[in-house]
Amino acid sequence: MTTLTIDPGEFASFQPQLDRPLDAKVRELQHQGRLHHMIFGAQLTPEVLEKIRAIADIIRAMARQRKSNDRLRQLLPHKRAMLYFTQPSTRTFLSFTAACQILGVTCNEVRDPKSSSEVKRESRMDSIRMFSSYFDVIIMRSEIAKFAECCSYMMNDLERQEMRSVPVINAGSGSDEHPTQALLDMYTILRTFDFDQSDKAKSSRLTVLREKYPDLEPSPNNKTYLFCGDIHRGRTVRSLATVLAQYSGVKLLFASPDHETLRLDSDLRERLTDAGAEVREFNSLDEDYDGQSLISQVDCLYTTRIQREHNTSDDSDELESLDLSPFQLTPERVASMKEFAPIMHPFPRDSIVNELPVEVDADPRAMYFRQARNGMWARAALLVHLFDAVDSLYMARDEVGMR
Amino acid sequence: MTTLTIDPGEFASFQPQLDRPLDAKVRELQHQGRLHHMIFGAQLTPEVLEKIRAIADIIRAMARQRKSNDRLRQLLPHKRAMLYFTQPSTRTFLSFTAACQILGVTCNEVRDPKSSSEVKRESRMDSIRMFSSYFDVIIMRSEIAKFAECCSYMMNDLERQEMRSVPVINAGSGSDEHPTQALLDMYTILRTFDFDQSDKAKSSRLTVLREKYPDLEPSPNNKTYLFCGDIHRGRTVRSLATVLAQYSGVKLLFASPDHETLRLDSDLRERLTDAGAEVREFNSLDEDYDGQSLISQVDCLYTTRIQREHNTSDDSDELESLDLSPFQLTPERVASMKEFAPIMHPFPRDSIVNELPVEVDADPRAMYFRQARNGMWARAALLVHLFDAVDSLYMARDEVGMR
Amino acid sequence: MTTLTIDPGEFASFQPQLDRPLDAKVRELQHQGRLHHMIFGAQLTPEVLEKIRAIADIIRAMARQRKSNDRLRQLLPHKRAMLYFTQPSTRTFLSFTAACQILGVTCNEVRDPKSSSEVKRESRMDSIRMFSSYFDVIIMRSEIAKFAECCSYMMNDLERQEMRSVPVINAGSGSDEHPTQALLDMYTILRTFDFDQSDKAKSSRLTVLREKYPDLEPSPNNKTYLFCGDIHRGRTVRSLATVLAQYSGVKLLFASPDHETLRLDSDLRERLTDAGAEVREFNSLDEDYDGQSLISQVDCLYTTRIQREHNTSDDSDELESLDLSPFQLTPERVASMKEFAPIMHPFPRDSIVNELPVEVDADPRAMYFRQARNGMWARAALLVHLFDAVDSLYMARDEVGMR
Repeated sequence: MTTLTIDPGEFASFQPQLDRPLDAKVRELQHQGRLHHMIFGAQLTPEVLEKIRAIADIIRAMARQRKSNDRLRQLLPHKRAMLYFTQPSTRTFLSFTAACQILGVTCNEVRDPKSSSEVKRESRMDSIRMFSSYFDVIIMRSEIAKFAECCSYMMNDLERQEMRSVPVINAGSGSDEHPTQALLDMYTILRTFDFDQSDKAKSSRLTVLREKYPDLEPSPNNKTYLFCGDIHRGRTVRSLATVLAQYSGVKLLFASPDHETLRLDSDLRERLTDAGAEVREFNSLDEDYDGQSLISQVDCLYTTRIQREHNTSDDSDELESLDLSPFQLTPERVASMKEFAPIMHPFPRDSIVNELPVEVDADPRAMYFRQARNGMWARAALLVHLFDAVDSLYMARDEVGMR
Repeated sequence: MTTLTIDPGEFASFQPQLDRPLDAKVRELQHQGRLHHMIFGAQLTPEVLEKIRAIADIIRAMARQRKSNDRLRQLLPHKRAMLYFTQPSTRTFLSFTAACQILGVTCNEVRDPKSSSEVKRESRMDSIRMFSSYFDVIIMRSEIAKFAECCSYMMNDLERQEMRSVPVINAGSGSDEHPTQALLDMYTILRTFDFDQSDKAKSSRLTVLREKYPDLEPSPNNKTYLFCGDIHRGRTVRSLATVLAQYSGVKLLFASPDHETLRLDSDLRERLTDAGAEVREFNSLDEDYDGQSLISQVDCLYTTRIQREHNTSDDSDELESLDLSPFQLTPERVASMKEFAPIMHPFPRDSIVNELPVEVDADPRAMYFRQARNGMWARAALLVHLFDAVDSLYMARDEVGMR
Repeated sequence: MTTLTIDPGEFASFQPQLDRPLDAKVRELQHQGRLHHMIFGAQLTPEVLEKIRAIADIIRAMARQRKSNDRLRQLLPHKRAMLYFTQPSTRTFLSFTAACQILGVTCNEVRDPKSSSEVKRESRMDSIRMFSSYFDVIIMRSEIAKFAECCSYMMNDLERQEMRSVPVINAGSGSDEHPTQALLDMYTILRTFDFDQSDKAKSSRLTVLREKYPDLEPSPNNKTYLFCGDIHRGRTVRSLATVLAQYSGVKLLFASPDHETLRLDSDLRERLTDAGAEVREFNSLDEDYDGQSLISQVDCLYTTRIQREHNTSDDSDELESLDLSPFQLTPERVASMKEFAPIMHPFPRDSIVNELPVEVDADPRAMYFRQARNGMWARAALLVHLFDAVDSLYMARDEVGMR
């Protein structure tokens, strides 16, 4: 998989910080009990997720009416964001810009990897510090693993020297981490498995569903999640599975072609098992699981695209000749699923391999377009959290007479 | 002419909708008596044009004073636009962004035809639906004929399924349609042929002009329009002529080199004649028309650039060797024109062929720079109309004490 | 040095205006006692600099608090800017966009030198006039010397014809001029050499410093400035030195490798001497000046990157083999400097040549990151000045209860 590694010279001064254990790093990225930079999926604990979910729910509710929508744009109009996306990503980019615009944040962008400053041999860290001179948050996507992490350490160093410092958001760093994708996926899962409990106006869908599924509970706990497709190369799958493993009684199932480039790697398996999750692998969506049809037991299905653009000259021929039909989510397979089980996909889907046919789009369980829109709300909520504007949000909601 | 055709597989599901007669399509694009999507020039009836002209006049008047200008930006600040321009067009793009900004609409753009999602084999319709997840209107320019049309049908299908749906504006689709260019041209013509009638503060220019031109009336009716240059390949000419043919007593004259790539095609001629217009062709601006000098009888001259970039290997040599001097709007030819007759050009003009010399720029009849600025007002008016914000606009005008 | 020259045909009509003496040109760019276009460094007189500095100080103070920050964005929200940057420049571009955003100005950009209109053979002047149809100020950076200058003359011509006309800002034109870089450098120098005099809340740093440096005065007068690095090709150095030479008792020293591509040219030397400055050249930072260590006598050090991208095939080998170590600002050299002397650099710095090592960044005299941020304030101030919004700024300040 194409991931640039850090030029050791360029990031050498951060090596001691990079070498610390993950929990020490996560602590360094906090600020008075809240996230200060968003770098790792490991920062998304159930507590943090619950906080951000509550913020996102308020933002989406306020966005619905003109008056409260206007009020949202008064939350952060004094903030200017830099979207530094040297690795192309239309979807994540647009989702962040929309999130910014909802809150009145002004967007700026640098997307060309061959910007003029690189020609002039400016160091990457100088470029980032330049951005922090002009802007109030840096949202960055890069092919270079750990680049965003180093930037957050530089900002913390500057803060200790009482110099200008701004929050950093990792919007995807090589094959490494993509924490805001895990955030939006979890926001979608939390909302789906709420079964309208938090909406007092609606009668509980849960009561109805429990007649058929007596053990169903309104949380991510005690659920069976099935990941399908490109397991090994999908950093999305890796991040989300790791976050889900924090919940209790979770079963994490993985269906992929039996090829080492695609199937679950032993590292991730071990990490998930250590966290207490039950882990199983499958070679087809049509297999059985504990003596019953796999697909009928799934509470949440997360399917993905085979990332052909990451094929290497070594594995390309083999991968292109694989039979992918056992992993295609045909309407027939969807028909066997539980009636509440969300169908998720990080998108884009492959219109030629067709792992998720358009015929499924009209199914009420199809969550993938709503999932994309959830990304916008979840990212807006993250900005409100990072900028410590949660109290302002609550005040704004009260001002416009909601609740 | 380079126009990509639709991949039949990709748009197959829209074929029944594409195959309907034009008037059925036009009806589908309406919404409670107003335009819901802007796709075809045929949607621009005199009634619609009159509505949009009235809106545009209010916007331009309000933009003049700081207080009312500020009030305009409060009309649609809750709307986010996606400008999806995979076919380059600086002028149309900037005109739309300026129009959005006048109304407070936030602009977002995708302009690179090789975006990351295409590499990942996302279907075009998935890309468009993704945009509709984040944004509130899609303004699109594409080399693919009928792409915008299919998008509007998809949005209507989603609306029928009670799913998120947004308006689509065609900002140019291949050689097919460019309805907002016709809109701004008609706005310019309506304003010019108003002769200050609607401006009660000014004494009527019409009274003065009628001393010399007794039959002159303040409308597009009973006028002689001369189109000059690249008639066959200019979708601008095609659209505007079709719209003008709806008015009564209209003469549509066409002057172009006698080459089938450039001159009026029989399809358009038939359509215009069927609509009741008198149609004539000329091989030079210096010919006579009904026994008198052609150019001295013209009420409105619309000249265009020869679109060399659409020359094919077959016709390029012939086209490059044509004598274009009989179509050049020299100051001498301008001197023979009626004193009120506007000189229009969709721009850009060709600085080498020089079909419209800079010497004409200072002539009071030269409308082409004002025409460009009119595009901004007309497109802003279209947005107000599509977003059903006309009543809000009238209220805003009253609030700031205008009228 | 790669500077495109003007196509004589394209700009021929401006030749008489281009041929005038500089002071006549500078007068033409004024408007009722203030700058109307910003084209030349020569427009930055001490009086103009003092005005812009006062505006910038108010803007930066107002930006600090949420309420006054919000008020700033109400100054110019009715203005739309075009950033026409056909020569790439990330830093200057972002600095201008941030400046616009602080004041509520909406930004638009054209950055691709091969825009669609050039393919269609639109003249450059038509493109600029098109921008002026949609936008309210044109901020332009181009490889073409004198292009911005011609644009300002076109705008003045249009104004005389009572047609739409907007201000033009030169954000770098070939090797020619980069006046807003000189502006931000001077803003930094004026602030540094104020020694907190204008901040009544603070006790005067000047009193303390005078114990050690008895002749120190709070102004750019009677100071020793040392420029280091790429003297000949750095338009930044040329512009700033010219501006500084207007102050009294100024010594301008230049340290560069003894190579004609890099060292002070006789033209500039003559201009500076004529203006009354003492000028000296050095081949190393370690030389003596008037019998004492050069570096210990410097009041302000301005170091620069060797602009390798402008090496020609003729001089490249020679330039690459030069020993640059005598010009590197090592911590040891910094240790010999006066304790108040600012270290400036226009950035980017070269991370390989390392003329300004990162070890210096934490030194309190290191001004280069603050200098970058000053660019944002100074450019915002320039916009307020050009748009004649200084009175509005003072009113806004009073409204929010500052001063």
